[in-house]
Amino acid sequence: MTLNVFKKPLYVILFFMDARFSYLSHLKCSACDHIYDADQLQTISPCCARPLLACYDLATLAKEVSRDEISHREATMWRYHEFLPVREPAHIISLGEGMTPLLHAPCLAPQGLEQQARLFVKDEGQNPTGSFKARGMSAAVSRAVELGVQGLVTPTAGNAGAALAAYAARAGLPSHVVAPKDAPHTCIQQARLYGGEVHLIPGLITDAGRAAAETARQRDWFNVATLREPYRAEGKKTMGLELAEQLGWRLPSAIIYPAGGGTGVVGMWKAFAELRAAGWIANDQLPKMIIVQAEGCAPLVRAFHQGKDEADAWPADEAHTQAAGLRVPSAIGDRLILQAVYESGGTALTVSDDSMQQMVCYAAKRAGMLIALEAAATLAAYHTLLATNFLQVEDEVVAYFTGSGLPDLQYVVC
Amino acid sequence: MTLNVFKKPLYVILFFMDARFSYLSHLKCSACDHIYDADQLQTISPCCARPLLACYDLATLAKEVSRDEISHREATMWRYHEFLPVREPAHIISLGEGMTPLLHAPCLAPQGLEQQARLFVKDEGQNPTGSFKARGMSAAVSRAVELGVQGLVTPTAGNAGAALAAYAARAGLPSHVVAPKDAPHTCIQQARLYGGEVHLIPGLITDAGRAAAETARQRDWFNVATLREPYRAEGKKTMGLELAEQLGWRLPSAIIYPAGGGTGVVGMWKAFAELRAAGWIANDQLPKMIIVQAEGCAPLVRAFHQGKDEADAWPADEAHTQAAGLRVPSAIGDRLILQAVYESGGTALTVSDDSMQQMVCYAAKRAGMLIALEAAATLAAYHTLLATNFLQVEDEVVAYFTGSGLPDLQYVVC
Ligand SMILES: Cc1ncc(COP(=O)(O)O)c(C=O)c1O
Ligand SMILES: Cc1ncc(COP(=O)(O)O)c(C=O)c1O
Repeated sequence: MTLNVFKKPLYVILFFMDARFSYLSHLKCSACDHIYDADQLQTISPCCARPLLACYDLATLAKEVSRDEISHREATMWRYHEFLPVREPAHIISLGEGMTPLLHAPCLAPQGLEQQARLFVKDEGQNPTGSFKARGMSAAVSRAVELGVQGLVTPTAGNAGAALAAYAARAGLPSHVVAPKDAPHTCIQQARLYGGEVHLIPGLITDAGRAAAETARQRDWFNVATLREPYRAEGKKTMGLELAEQLGWRLPSAIIYPAGGGTGVVGMWKAFAELRAAGWIANDQLPKMIIVQAEGCAPLVRAFHQGKDEADAWPADEAHTQAAGLRVPSAIGDRLILQAVYESGGTALTVSDDSMQQMVCYAAKRAGMLIALEAAATLAAYHTLLATNFLQVEDEVVAYFTGSGLPDLQYVVC
Repeated sequence: MTLNVFKKPLYVILFFMDARFSYLSHLKCSACDHIYDADQLQTISPCCARPLLACYDLATLAKEVSRDEISHREATMWRYHEFLPVREPAHIISLGEGMTPLLHAPCLAPQGLEQQARLFVKDEGQNPTGSFKARGMSAAVSRAVELGVQGLVTPTAGNAGAALAAYAARAGLPSHVVAPKDAPHTCIQQARLYGGEVHLIPGLITDAGRAAAETARQRDWFNVATLREPYRAEGKKTMGLELAEQLGWRLPSAIIYPAGGGTGVVGMWKAFAELRAAGWIANDQLPKMIIVQAEGCAPLVRAFHQGKDEADAWPADEAHTQAAGLRVPSAIGDRLILQAVYESGGTALTVSDDSMQQMVCYAAKRAGMLIALEAAATLAAYHTLLATNFLQVEDEVVAYFTGSGLPDLQYVVC
């Protein structure tokens, strides 16, 4: 009996000592489930040359962490540190990313439907560096620093390069960014101001990808290209974790997301699976995942309508859109993205550059929000999907406004 | 006895029914304490033509609301709704403003002092519209809508006009912005994109103030010029409330703030007094309030060094600085600002435009933060105050990075 009396406090002490900062357990190949060590620097899976996904000990997490605990924490994505890969708080490289507002915005529904619409927008433009790319880079750079890298490289359509340069600066590390020479010069200038070394090349993001890999190899720096290392997707996953928390631990009917490389979609879909595994959301409530691409570059949308599991590359000389983040002719995460769309009963559609531009103005005038073209694509998609009856006006829909329009506001004509 | 048993639950029920959304009680003249009705539209005090300050029933608030309750709430400034003037949740016009990150940034101390420095920065550039002006406008527009206005007017150096136009758009109301013709054209363009009607005039912000007042009179729209209505300061107050919460309900040794019209300083100083009155922070821990202005336009700094309670206007034809938000030759809140500086044992200093520009680059390269010139002024001030020994490297200092550099990044040369 006396023993028992002492056991309890002892148990409690051990329990607290044991609560881990991160529940990261291992990495697995997204194609064949082969397991890899998470505490080594990894790129894509040696077995299948496909993305590696981070796995967590969610059963233990569920026992040791409660979702109510989270609600007290600081308003950044690091409030979910148990679901993130960084092992030591001191290794976090943060500029205050995440916990962006989820705004009720029925005023952005088509005219006449504002009264009934249940449209929400998540304003990712309020992230550091002006886009959701900050989340991925905060996670990837933090973890790369934890694992001892000396320099960082990324190919970019624009925003990812700016974000990498910012987080590398915050970490005190050098960065090298490779972008197509027609990438938005505002993003390029932004990356340079943060001290990033920018290399402009002819061609598309895929060509930049090759050049970035080569530089990383030569300098022995770490390449954080989309889904070529496991942790950017983990950062983007927090867009899904936050959504659940902000809606009171439930999810909407549908999510609309502008897909380029598609890590956002992959990350969110993973977030929902993990929240279910941890018992933090109910099992029956997953949103339809809807991806939108530009008419002039839509490999994923084409694959979806052909019912394929993989997407053929869009012909490089035909890849045209003003939305630089969507000028991505092929994505290494294609299977994972399409899987999320299929499994969720979602859809994929294209919108024109004109309609994106119109929606930039619509959001500015009706909601006081200045958004990037990629973000405006989600709004154009919402209007289209109401018109085609894929969505009903009473469906609760969340559009991800992935980037701010502030850096490019001088080029907007309304 | 039986009665007692029932009394308790009954008391609890009444208690909850009674907890108010806002504890706003009345307005008072900042010069003579004369009381005015808070539920009428008010401008400056009819008695002394000075700013009106919002007063709250803090004794009751202290009994009915706990600071721990706040920690669960949504990550916007409206988490402090009891300390804000809006009576009905439905009247809040929000774009997700506030709860900006407080970042530990010793890397922004002068070189060689990074190890010891206890510098924090509050990144107000992550607010909607890219500056802290969003806070003031969210509060003022919400309250104006609650009190029934039909249109909104403001004079602006730039950011306030953009913020007004955004919040008016979100509220579905027309807005009219008057700016000096040399105001940053990015801000002007931003206000126009939100649907604001922009009127450019020759002269300075003070001239714009007269034109705005005239338009408001003619159209019977409401003028939200700095401290000419009581609620913008209330929104800015939340910068102080958040700081206390983010530091675990205590305050730093010193705060550095770039003062133009100075509402930020007035608002924060008021926040600290209210937190003390509510018993949420201890009575002995107020920060030194330090204001920084530009060498070419420094009426408040001059008044401080002359030991005056009021500031004479800076000669209009000598008011020169690239930091548009600091090109304010006279401020109606001069007495309140100077009072905060004197009472807190703070100081006032100028910095050159060159040093602001250098600090923009310093922050970009060393911290991955792209900030506005006004924000960079606080960093220049921090460096100066360490050099002159007004501050010690071990002092915990918070610099307010009031605006983002994203809209103007194309003009930055580093
Ligand atoms: C604003 C914006 N939205 C969307 C995307 C596409 O994101 P992802 O590559 O994760 O699909 C990008 C990519 O550059 C972007 O910058
Ligand atoms: C970025 C920025 N910082 C500081 C200020 C000065 O603020 P206040 O007028 O409240 O003193 C302004 C005003 O326009 C501003 O835009």
